[in-house]
Amino acid sequence: MSIFPRFAKTPEPPYYAVIFSSTLQDGGFAQVAEKIVKLASQQLGFLGVESVRGTDGFGITVSYWTSEEAVSAWKANVEHLAAQEKGKQEWYEHYELRVAKVERAYAKASP
Amino acid sequence: MSIFPRFAKTPEPPYYAVIFSSTLQDGGFAQVAEKIVKLASQQLGFLGVESVRGTDGFGITVSYWTSEEAVSAWKANVEHLAAQEKGKQEWYEHYELRVAKVERAYAKASP
Repeated sequence: MSIFPRFAKTPEPPYYAVIFSSTLQDGGFAQVAEKIVKLASQQLGFLGVESVRGTDGFGITVSYWTSEEAVSAWKANVEHLAAQEKGKQEWYEHYELRVAKVERAYAKASP
Repeated sequence: MSIFPRFAKTPEPPYYAVIFSSTLQDGGFAQVAEKIVKLASQQLGFLGVESVRGTDGFGITVSYWTSEEAVSAWKANVEHLAAQEKGKQEWYEHYELRVAKVERAYAKASP
């Protein structure tokens, strides 16, 4: 995820968040995940992404989107559909994906 | 966060998610974070939590709540208020906190 800053720069709410928690199958695929995030970033309505994976293989990626329509369009993206299928079959041991509308936000930014 | 399973067991949407992304000041405080999560888990309306911090110090914690009221009550919890103040002053270099209403959810569970 190194092409993105660690914190997403998001506008005033409302906007959407896709919260993706996962554990990998053996023989992970960090490079593929990076490719998918890059693909997402070229999608209309993409606002940013925050992502971290621990040494135990559990990871959380949150992508931010302007609207529900932008989330749905991303879900239906052809290259992303292929990745979703592979993800289900091969890459992930377990995942939870939640689509949520951000209503409020607070921050303490670095100086 | 070892007292919790890695994946939160959440009900059918709608429910609420508090997405907390952060980087620590020098001299972190993993034990304090664990204490706060434990405190949250005793709060009315707490559904679960998912949390991961990378080796570079960037972390994401998502807590799940039954309702907006439950999130607000947690925000106003006296012990938590003290922690929020400390967090702002001492613990975190940078954080972004987003309150979001989960509208849809999908999963692939481990066998």
